[in-house]
Amino acid sequence: MRSGADITDRRLKRATSGCGGPDGTMEDGEGASCATPTTPNEEMNGAGNLMDFLDEPFPDVGTYEDFHTIDWLREKSRDTDRHRKITSKSKESMWELIKSLLDAWSGWVVMLLIGLLSGTLAGVIDLAVDWMTDLKEGVCLSAFWYSHEQCCWTSNETTFDDRDKCPQWQTWAELMTGHAEGGGAYVLNYFLYVLWALLFSFLAVSLVRVFAPYACGSGIPEIKTILSGFIIRGYLGKWTLLIKTVTLVLAVSSGLSLGKEGPLVHVACCCGNLFCSLFSKYSKNEGKRREVLSAAAAAGVSVAFGAPIGGVLFSLEEVSYYFPLKTLWRSFFAALVAAFTLRAINPFGNSRLVLFYVEYHTPWYMAELVPFILLGVFGGLWGTLFIRANIAWCRRRKTTQLGKYPVLEVIAVTAITAVLAFPNPYTRRSTSELISELFNDCGALESSQLCDYVNNPNMSRPVDDIPDRPAGPGVYNALWQLALALVFKIVITIFTFGMKIPSGLFIPSMAVGAIAGRIVGIAVEQMAYHHHDWIIFKNWCRPGADCVTPGLYAMVGAAACLGGVTRMTVSLVVIMFELTGGLEYIVPLMAAAVTSKWVADAFGKEGIYESHIQLNGYPYLDVRDEFTHRTLATDVMRPRRNDPPLAVLTQDSTTVEDAEALIKDTDYSGFPVVVSRESERLIGFVQRRDLTLAIKTARQKQDGVVSSSMVYFTEDAQQLPASDPQPLKLRRILNLSPFTVTDHTPMETVVDIFRKLGLRQCLVTRSGRLLGIITKKDVLRHMAQMMNQDPESIMFN
Amino acid sequence: MRSGADITDRRLKRATSGCGGPDGTMEDGEGASCATPTTPNEEMNGAGNLMDFLDEPFPDVGTYEDFHTIDWLREKSRDTDRHRKITSKSKESMWELIKSLLDAWSGWVVMLLIGLLSGTLAGVIDLAVDWMTDLKEGVCLSAFWYSHEQCCWTSNETTFDDRDKCPQWQTWAELMTGHAEGGGAYVLNYFLYVLWALLFSFLAVSLVRVFAPYACGSGIPEIKTILSGFIIRGYLGKWTLLIKTVTLVLAVSSGLSLGKEGPLVHVACCCGNLFCSLFSKYSKNEGKRREVLSAAAAAGVSVAFGAPIGGVLFSLEEVSYYFPLKTLWRSFFAALVAAFTLRAINPFGNSRLVLFYVEYHTPWYMAELVPFILLGVFGGLWGTLFIRANIAWCRRRKTTQLGKYPVLEVIAVTAITAVLAFPNPYTRRSTSELISELFNDCGALESSQLCDYVNNPNMSRPVDDIPDRPAGPGVYNALWQLALALVFKIVITIFTFGMKIPSGLFIPSMAVGAIAGRIVGIAVEQMAYHHHDWIIFKNWCRPGADCVTPGLYAMVGAAACLGGVTRMTVSLVVIMFELTGGLEYIVPLMAAAVTSKWVADAFGKEGIYESHIQLNGYPYLDVRDEFTHRTLATDVMRPRRNDPPLAVLTQDSTTVEDAEALIKDTDYSGFPVVVSRESERLIGFVQRRDLTLAIKTARQKQDGVVSSSMVYFTEDAQQLPASDPQPLKLRRILNLSPFTVTDHTPMETVVDIFRKLGLRQCLVTRSGRLLGIITKKDVLRHMAQMMNQDPESIMFN
Repeated sequence: MRSGADITDRRLKRATSGCGGPDGTMEDGEGASCATPTTPNEEMNGAGNLMDFLDEPFPDVGTYEDFHTIDWLREKSRDTDRHRKITSKSKESMWELIKSLLDAWSGWVVMLLIGLLSGTLAGVIDLAVDWMTDLKEGVCLSAFWYSHEQCCWTSNETTFDDRDKCPQWQTWAELMTGHAEGGGAYVLNYFLYVLWALLFSFLAVSLVRVFAPYACGSGIPEIKTILSGFIIRGYLGKWTLLIKTVTLVLAVSSGLSLGKEGPLVHVACCCGNLFCSLFSKYSKNEGKRREVLSAAAAAGVSVAFGAPIGGVLFSLEEVSYYFPLKTLWRSFFAALVAAFTLRAINPFGNSRLVLFYVEYHTPWYMAELVPFILLGVFGGLWGTLFIRANIAWCRRRKTTQLGKYPVLEVIAVTAITAVLAFPNPYTRRSTSELISELFNDCGALESSQLCDYVNNPNMSRPVDDIPDRPAGPGVYNALWQLALALVFKIVITIFTFGMKIPSGLFIPSMAVGAIAGRIVGIAVEQMAYHHHDWIIFKNWCRPGADCVTPGLYAMVGAAACLGGVTRMTVSLVVIMFELTGGLEYIVPLMAAAVTSKWVADAFGKEGIYESHIQLNGYPYLDVRDEFTHRTLATDVMRPRRNDPPLAVLTQDSTTVEDAEALIKDTDYSGFPVVVSRESERLIGFVQRRDLTLAIKTARQKQDGVVSSSMVYFTEDAQQLPASDPQPLKLRRILNLSPFTVTDHTPMETVVDIFRKLGLRQCLVTRSGRLLGIITKKDVLRHMAQMMNQDPESIMFN
Repeated sequence: MRSGADITDRRLKRATSGCGGPDGTMEDGEGASCATPTTPNEEMNGAGNLMDFLDEPFPDVGTYEDFHTIDWLREKSRDTDRHRKITSKSKESMWELIKSLLDAWSGWVVMLLIGLLSGTLAGVIDLAVDWMTDLKEGVCLSAFWYSHEQCCWTSNETTFDDRDKCPQWQTWAELMTGHAEGGGAYVLNYFLYVLWALLFSFLAVSLVRVFAPYACGSGIPEIKTILSGFIIRGYLGKWTLLIKTVTLVLAVSSGLSLGKEGPLVHVACCCGNLFCSLFSKYSKNEGKRREVLSAAAAAGVSVAFGAPIGGVLFSLEEVSYYFPLKTLWRSFFAALVAAFTLRAINPFGNSRLVLFYVEYHTPWYMAELVPFILLGVFGGLWGTLFIRANIAWCRRRKTTQLGKYPVLEVIAVTAITAVLAFPNPYTRRSTSELISELFNDCGALESSQLCDYVNNPNMSRPVDDIPDRPAGPGVYNALWQLALALVFKIVITIFTFGMKIPSGLFIPSMAVGAIAGRIVGIAVEQMAYHHHDWIIFKNWCRPGADCVTPGLYAMVGAAACLGGVTRMTVSLVVIMFELTGGLEYIVPLMAAAVTSKWVADAFGKEGIYESHIQLNGYPYLDVRDEFTHRTLATDVMRPRRNDPPLAVLTQDSTTVEDAEALIKDTDYSGFPVVVSRESERLIGFVQRRDLTLAIKTARQKQDGVVSSSMVYFTEDAQQLPASDPQPLKLRRILNLSPFTVTDHTPMETVVDIFRKLGLRQCLVTRSGRLLGIITKKDVLRHMAQMMNQDPESIMFN
């Protein structure tokens, strides 16, 4: 017999976290990718609170199994019931009133806690990464827990001109051999750099593999899926939180081409889930829990970039599924608390909230829009290339032997990265430092190679507003190194993202864009300097004026590349705006972001997160996909033509035995209940899980319920002869308001209904007769078919 | 016979625009308030494009009547059809491909145009208001079209110390009598000030009354209603646009206690509607049109405050109903274009985008949160007081003789305002100037009375960072005048908002808050100066330090009052953030905004816009109202018990005559179609408008269709004997996928479905039998009943 509702696929049990490869325990690589979490986090993560004994007629009724989709409408109505109960009780006594007030405030308390914890964790991660990144090169003798910068800041011997050098900070070679310079010292430093990198990445991948497989990857695809109403137990558990925090530090410090921004969102969501368990309002209601998680995602981006408004918009635009206004306001609160907590910790030592603080002194000119738009095109192309190549590589990892050796893979990529990165000063340092330098405008006091311009000796040196100058040898040298760094970053990032360690995409993408942007910026600047009589420069660039800011080009390039990869729009521009704090530069950023999105969209609608969701086959119904095909509900519903009829229960002619047989023979997650098989008039829908539990409980506790007992879904059971066995009344578990559509409903409307109401399934009727059922999985499969994707890749329900 | 669908209420024809009073033509004052727009805008506004002859089987099928609710699902599916048609055609020829590309780009083109036009209009309004406000006091002799500031800026005789005085600018008394000072000159100036104010306001109210009744009020309640899917023809028409722009200038210049911000949103939405008519994609689809209008609202706020991000969030949080991500991105674009257009016009002469640009030099201290929260409480109380008093006054206007004399009312209020405002320098000037001065930090060069501090003669005068000083006599004087201004503003604003002229609320609310805030700020500052040894000041305020910034208090107060009145949250904080440009001050602003919202919410959930929507009985289903009652669909559906049965059509046993009789006897806006009256199995739903048109067209054009013809809704009409008259086949106009719920569905779910899917009506079934119908109006009436409001006030469908 075919149909019922969603199929509890056996494959579900081999769950995935989107990164890593097939595990030893798996028979086939299709769909699933990394191993089921083993005991620690299954035990320790409280994602599913099963403590409903007191409130519910049958224990566990109304909870969900792992890898199932929640029913948003049911969750909402359960919360309303709870709220109603508390409100009516609150009039009874003072204590109940206080309890109801506490309940009303618990949302804000959770937000405050999320903000505090995620801000603190972000600060700790920043400090640890700083220290460990520098540890690859050397150590601070005065206090080994100081990073290079802290070491030299606290030293008295540091001069202003050479801020990076101080006797307390020694490279490993200096410490071991006493020589700071020379070939031997270089080789020794090189060797130790690679060794430290390998050690860090080995530790990271081992911790992930052993303790928390869900800690790998960026986590954003999974969080999107969870927020859309899917249950993945343990994905946001305490164990994942701990391991992800530790391994994130290790992975970033190892110098791999990855960032901490995406994983920070995951970490913040774990914090959110953790605090949910403090309040039954959130822990017992999967819908309410998701409101908290949306806000936590905002807090995560807020601390990642120091951009609270951008964080809220990121959560709204990119991550969240159901985002009521109340959540908007609370997200903003959480994001602000997180940002200020981070500032109180002050990991960058500059009292700045933002990761890359920039201040430009020159406005931009209309003509510059041309290079900005070109950078947008570059960003779009890079986005397309990256997504295609990365997905192809990840698919290969899933389907071949490659995926079986995640540790080896990480070690190999780290070795290649470290070996290639060390010789080039722009890849040796941490990627965020690189971006920071590329974004910076060359002030008069800048000592970096990139600012090695030929100065006019007669010129006085004002602090701001330095006119355009010809580039010196240092700049040309830097350009070459940057070009090499660009190629290196482009290639290595493709192989890095998706390995079995925490890895974010924001920073590498931004680095690619920033390098390209800076190169273009310097080129335009030099062109404007040497050819200021050209018609394009004539109007806005007189000799001796400061026309071009290469740092701005780097910023625009970074926005373009990030936009190409993630397809963020408003949140991207707002994050960038919060970095500069000036509306001035919004137009260049927007021009680049729009171009990049258009170019990338021309080659494929999905961003990297959606692509990974698809690759892993998560049941995610994207709000952005427009379904424009002319199919009807009848084309999608089950049973199909030639299929056996729909598995239904009748309201008063089914025995306990029949019901048990139905449960045993099918694996649908629910059954429609009809008046009789002849009339096919629908009266309700019963969940498989609820039915199983109810029968089991009744058999154990209720006297007289035997196999031949009748199951009644009607309001009043008919008077039965005394000889008949005790009937089993199950109206309590019957959903009397199942969602129905007619068979003529266009699929486009059905898709809309599934999306907006968050349904699990929907029954199809014609002139009042039950015809079939459409589940979320059927919808997803149909959409994939219509878009010529592989329909088999959607494997969860 | 009772039921069918929404009732086309006769009262609808006497539409309202929320302001003004009952008109001469009205029999009863219940519900409706100002007159139906007369010919000019009914003719000129292209809100309803009736040019569907070519595409639709029957002309006008699928359009809506005035004061009806749109069906979002139908609009969406019509747009998908259109899109599908264009896509399939685009493969046929180059020309079709270009057309399809143009179609795809038209959204961006519309946004660009909206941005350009609303930015330009805002600039023109700003310039005109500046000039006309100053015209009340005097005139520029060198060029009469210069405002006071422009006049003295262009003059060579202006000194830096006395920027406001120059010989070219003469007060009316100076010009007429030659004396600038003295009692006679004062009286003459006073008299002319009042006279000009009366002239401006008389012109404004007359223009509104004669040409565009819809131009009155702030427009935001109506725009919210329109965006939620209601049709008010002409509300966003060209005529309204023109008159609202002109009368807005007049109203603001007259010195009444009103602002231009709300009306600017209306103006921007009119621009949006205007440009919609250029593209059939938007003009023919009410759903798509609303996407454009949401973006236009964002552009309106963007130019009102120079805050593009705040504008987008305002549209999202406060105004819009259906806000897909695509709209978010486009709104942002429109808001930016508008902001930059406004900056290009540069009406404030300072190259700033924002209305009130502020820069503070001192951070705030934890202890200051106490006064900030007190200001929040004040803001909440003011919001409550204002909403209650204003609604009571507006209700009185609607129900008594008062409403019959809108011109007189405006004249009287203007006279009182002008007479009371002139003697006080803080009320004489325009409200935005007042707010601007209150927000400002006292620099060393400030000459205003508010900055008349006693300076230490030994102290050098640094430009920034002036330590706290004792207040001089000017400050004490200013405090008295501010206190009087506060009382005056509080009282007069209650009577001003809702008169028959364009009137915004933002500026008066902010003014009340800014005055209160500045007074509190100066008090705290003086307390800190004189008692810096008190325990609360000891930690952060050493003598000689600059501890307290009274301007910041003014800003916090303004945010609190605005929040109390409108209940904006995130958008409010973001707008304020964009004014200062620093994340530093977000915490005080948020503390005040949250407090103010909580305090105000404690006295009543509705903001001023929702209250006006309720007062006018618009069919607005607020997304924020949580419906928590335990009622079921069966309690709400019609027919009620004891009512006559539902008016239905049968699929193959109705004659044309029967159908016509049904149309004539009932006024429901649609009828369910069932298999037969006995089985009551639902097959579809037909709109009254479509049915009427179809029968009319058939009678005129189709031979053989007479009164006794059968109406068939089935797929294939049975073969009839040749003697029978030609049947009328109407399956084309039958909606085969009407929305149904079961009678046991909780109303909370039904409300959710109506909100999220934007339904007009929903049919109720039990075990496949049609039981009744629930319309949007029924839902609203039920919600009002449950919340103990006057259910009769919801009068439109």
